[in-house]
Amino acid sequence: MSPQVARVALRDIQQPIQAELEEVGAELRRIIAADFPLIAEVNDHLLRMKGKLFRPTLVLLSHQAVGGRGGARAVTLAAVIELIHLATLVHDDSVDHSALRRGMPTINAVFSHQTAVIMGDYLYSRAIIELVRLNELDPLRVLARVTNEMTVGEMRQLTAHDRLTFREADYDALVRAKTASLLSGACEVGALGAAPEYRQALARFGQYLGVAFQITDDLLDYTQTEAVMGKPSGLDLREHKMTLPLIAAVDRLDPAARRRVADLMETPQPSEADVAEVVRLVDAAGGLDYARTRALEMAQLAEAELGRLPPSRARDALRDSISYAVERHS
Amino acid sequence: MSPQVARVALRDIQQPIQAELEEVGAELRRIIAADFPLIAEVNDHLLRMKGKLFRPTLVLLSHQAVGGRGGARAVTLAAVIELIHLATLVHDDSVDHSALRRGMPTINAVFSHQTAVIMGDYLYSRAIIELVRLNELDPLRVLARVTNEMTVGEMRQLTAHDRLTFREADYDALVRAKTASLLSGACEVGALGAAPEYRQALARFGQYLGVAFQITDDLLDYTQTEAVMGKPSGLDLREHKMTLPLIAAVDRLDPAARRRVADLMETPQPSEADVAEVVRLVDAAGGLDYARTRALEMAQLAEAELGRLPPSRARDALRDSISYAVERHS
Repeated sequence: MSPQVARVALRDIQQPIQAELEEVGAELRRIIAADFPLIAEVNDHLLRMKGKLFRPTLVLLSHQAVGGRGGARAVTLAAVIELIHLATLVHDDSVDHSALRRGMPTINAVFSHQTAVIMGDYLYSRAIIELVRLNELDPLRVLARVTNEMTVGEMRQLTAHDRLTFREADYDALVRAKTASLLSGACEVGALGAAPEYRQALARFGQYLGVAFQITDDLLDYTQTEAVMGKPSGLDLREHKMTLPLIAAVDRLDPAARRRVADLMETPQPSEADVAEVVRLVDAAGGLDYARTRALEMAQLAEAELGRLPPSRARDALRDSISYAVERHS
Repeated sequence: MSPQVARVALRDIQQPIQAELEEVGAELRRIIAADFPLIAEVNDHLLRMKGKLFRPTLVLLSHQAVGGRGGARAVTLAAVIELIHLATLVHDDSVDHSALRRGMPTINAVFSHQTAVIMGDYLYSRAIIELVRLNELDPLRVLARVTNEMTVGEMRQLTAHDRLTFREADYDALVRAKTASLLSGACEVGALGAAPEYRQALARFGQYLGVAFQITDDLLDYTQTEAVMGKPSGLDLREHKMTLPLIAAVDRLDPAARRRVADLMETPQPSEADVAEVVRLVDAAGGLDYARTRALEMAQLAEAELGRLPPSRARDALRDSISYAVERHS
């Protein structure tokens, strides 16, 4: 199967690990539980902001794909990965002053910016406590490195604004650190008990998958509308954020078109019409096609890594997760 | 010796562990080193913002007081404690929109609020990486708990504004979590190799010392001027923050004085004169004396814990650190 053929639903991918996945929510709730009323209130809000559990899915499928037998430890690792993701989202939304996430108001919007900064720290330190409780250094070793890489990615993200000179190499480094590192970490901690060649193959699989996932996300910002995303489309452009479609288009634009893009980058609050025009220019210059091609290349590299694993239902589901990552509409 | 007698200089306290302490700065620099230019730039700023290394001093003295032989591991733990402290300060300053710290501009002021949030995460995750590198779970177990407690303390801090009904029990819980937990953790990780009774005595010592330290800090905000503190005096009142002097005074104020305090709490930018008047009212109602008494009680409890340790120069220095904590002028 080539990744571009099938449209895959996440629930099908999750089928082999459905039993464990159903426990992840309760486990997450247990890990972040707090006596202090304000924290309990924020926790409730976060737990209602239910994500698709894509990263826990990767932990559990990777675990099963290398012969892991599931159980409480795998569920805890899956919940911790989601928790680290959640902590990152809370800080990201605060840094970006985002008002919506997963179709719900963000912590910074509902509570305050201060609450969001502190809650991110709260959630992350709870994740570390939980990893210590597992009484093993290996998951800590992987996830401490991953979370540090994510902060470097966030810092790179800060430099990706307002700069038409932001290059594809910068974008690659940003995406590997910001997004791919956690997907890679999810696959790797799922496979920690396995032979090194399986563990490393799954770490690389997660890395490629993560890059494909982020390019797709950046493409969706150019192609999707607000109702589907739960956040405004064209937001990256509005925020002067350089992503792959624009980076790829910039060198191919004629001087007039390039001037329009530069103007938008210098306009603090560009109009809907200006944003729509730049989206059109990026598309016409082949920026969207280029990004789609890059996403598919990454998908193929991810798929090749799965070839190193023994055949299993979980491996098939991981393969389907590639299609999901590059074909999803939200 | 009773804590209120001598005026003690930090350099005297640090004398028994001077050799290790001199390595802490370079160790900290190594741990936070980064390739990415923006992070390297923030690191340089942070390392110029040199603190007094009070927490590393506690790690190294506790270590020596239980017979530890110093060495690279103790220096790393001391540097990690300072790093966790630094990460917390970076987020605190960002949350509080503070412009000055240790007499220098804060990260949020020099760079941006976004940079400060991400840098705090960067520093904290580097601390975890370093603890994992030591290949032991015990320091991680202590410090993951401590950092989580600190976030709960920060959250309590958020609720300590604008509320004359904030009670001493709330303040105690806040201070134990926000300040005392890290001082306690510093002493405890220094003594990790020791017998449980020594380890626990030092953990309690750090807890009491931390409360005394924070009450003194809160007192200084009422008594010191800008030139000494490197930050404006009366800042807590200006920010409507309830600390022990005010909490103790509130119930003893006559209705007119209480009204003045309530007015200040409802004034977004109170004048110098209004702040000075409330400082005077708090002092006249015995709020400062009450806080001083509480700090000394905590100092005595801290000293009693040291009685459980064998005599040593390091134990004497820890005793002197109590005097330092309650008598310092900045």
